[in-house]
Amino acid sequence: MPTFKITVAYDGTGFVGWQRQAKGTSIQGAIEDALRVLDGRDVTVHGAGRTDAGVHAVGQVASFTLARGMDAGAVMRAVNARLPLAIRVVDAETVDPAFHARYGARLKTYRYQILNASIPDVFARAYAWHVPGALDCDAMRGAARLLEGRHDFAAFQASGAATKTTEREIFRIKIFTTEDTAEKPILCARSPGVPRVLRGGEFRTRVPDGSLIVIAVAGDGFLRHMVRILVGSLVEIGRGRRDAAWLADVLAAGDRRRAGPTAPAHGLFLQAVEYPPRMLADEP
Amino acid sequence: MPTFKITVAYDGTGFVGWQRQAKGTSIQGAIEDALRVLDGRDVTVHGAGRTDAGVHAVGQVASFTLARGMDAGAVMRAVNARLPLAIRVVDAETVDPAFHARYGARLKTYRYQILNASIPDVFARAYAWHVPGALDCDAMRGAARLLEGRHDFAAFQASGAATKTTEREIFRIKIFTTEDTAEKPILCARSPGVPRVLRGGEFRTRVPDGSLIVIAVAGDGFLRHMVRILVGSLVEIGRGRRDAAWLADVLAAGDRRRAGPTAPAHGLFLQAVEYPPRMLADEP
Repeated sequence: MPTFKITVAYDGTGFVGWQRQAKGTSIQGAIEDALRVLDGRDVTVHGAGRTDAGVHAVGQVASFTLARGMDAGAVMRAVNARLPLAIRVVDAETVDPAFHARYGARLKTYRYQILNASIPDVFARAYAWHVPGALDCDAMRGAARLLEGRHDFAAFQASGAATKTTEREIFRIKIFTTEDTAEKPILCARSPGVPRVLRGGEFRTRVPDGSLIVIAVAGDGFLRHMVRILVGSLVEIGRGRRDAAWLADVLAAGDRRRAGPTAPAHGLFLQAVEYPPRMLADEP
Repeated sequence: MPTFKITVAYDGTGFVGWQRQAKGTSIQGAIEDALRVLDGRDVTVHGAGRTDAGVHAVGQVASFTLARGMDAGAVMRAVNARLPLAIRVVDAETVDPAFHARYGARLKTYRYQILNASIPDVFARAYAWHVPGALDCDAMRGAARLLEGRHDFAAFQASGAATKTTEREIFRIKIFTTEDTAEKPILCARSPGVPRVLRGGEFRTRVPDGSLIVIAVAGDGFLRHMVRILVGSLVEIGRGRRDAAWLADVLAAGDRRRAGPTAPAHGLFLQAVEYPPRMLADEP
């Protein structure tokens, strides 16, 4: 009964999201369907992050246990052969049977792409939020600092969501443009590697028309819509409609209605999920 | 009766190509439909390159004449308001009434993207040809040099195509990876600018797994499928199945059946079209 950890990339366009739904195609459902054929029985796949409809992933992590003994490379090839091209398993390894992709996750990195351009880009329309008009990146960076650390993020949770606690820790928020860095485009960013959000670097304030602005957020966990509401709020500040003091008030008040709008799903990518090394050992 | 030159970007996925067809949606048709509403009569749009179904454009150029007097910016905004998001007019100017986007073109640059990776990239699947296995970029570069200059490219034309002459001039073929350059990804490459193919630079031979290899070709004009057959032939050489001497023989023999396969449409982008400055003057 080997347990596997897989890393999955997907173009979320047209999917109902990670989680199986009564209607529509989910990422989880597509992987479970492929594994059912492989293992000859129903297999439950646990994903680290339950991404919403239209949200993409470069490095989603999932775990499952098979009845058949198979090596990780063979599982990856067999599953990829049955998945649509919009979903790819990009890495697979056998892990300790106690490993659980969701409960074991200690660091998640999300990436939100904003195309700050007067004219939308035809190739970015499903992969970036098109925001015309100037954005003050320094004002956004200054406000983002207030969100770093351990806080009650109740104001940044989809209304109606029920969770035990709304306290989370954001380790880092980094705002940069792809022109500031030698970063590979998301088009080719297949291997998540070390989350870039944790690396250093100084980035520019003025952003030329046509820039792709990236808001990278690393934390120990995220509430439903949390990254998208953070981004929607930071863009209000970038546009000059609100300031950092407003964001501090919103955070303190814990009221969803006072925060900014929810940024659209199609700009969001689950970039990487990390686990303590001991969790990954497949030796008992 | 002002004449306009527009620069158009499009994601060719799902379109029947540039040219109007009996069935399906064409880029030309979508723009003509938008202009009919604007001008209150049928408008014919001439495109510089008649791209095939699935082929993309960053800098297609087209021309047309309106009955209404309008400034170029207003035309651009009005057309964009009526076009699907997969097509955007990114630039517009008034030009000499004699300007014709196809007949006047003197330099066209095409870009072909190959994803050289063991696992296909979910975000590149409509924008790059997935070629697994090692490709020898230096062998491809050496062979590509043989194609530069004025030649009869009959061997590199879709069978059945009828043209007055199959002689064309290729000014430059450049083969590089996006990791070799600080180039912006095609995702953001909205402004065509100076075709990169004409710039200098030394590029690497060994290409790490997951690289996006770009074959950029600049010439005075191209036969039907010419870039795709050139790319298909160069990839045969990159794979080690053929060599430069074979390519020289194919070129000399002028027989389509001896050349390599036609590379898929979805890796191809019409990047830029250039005209002599005097053609663009809108002063009589």
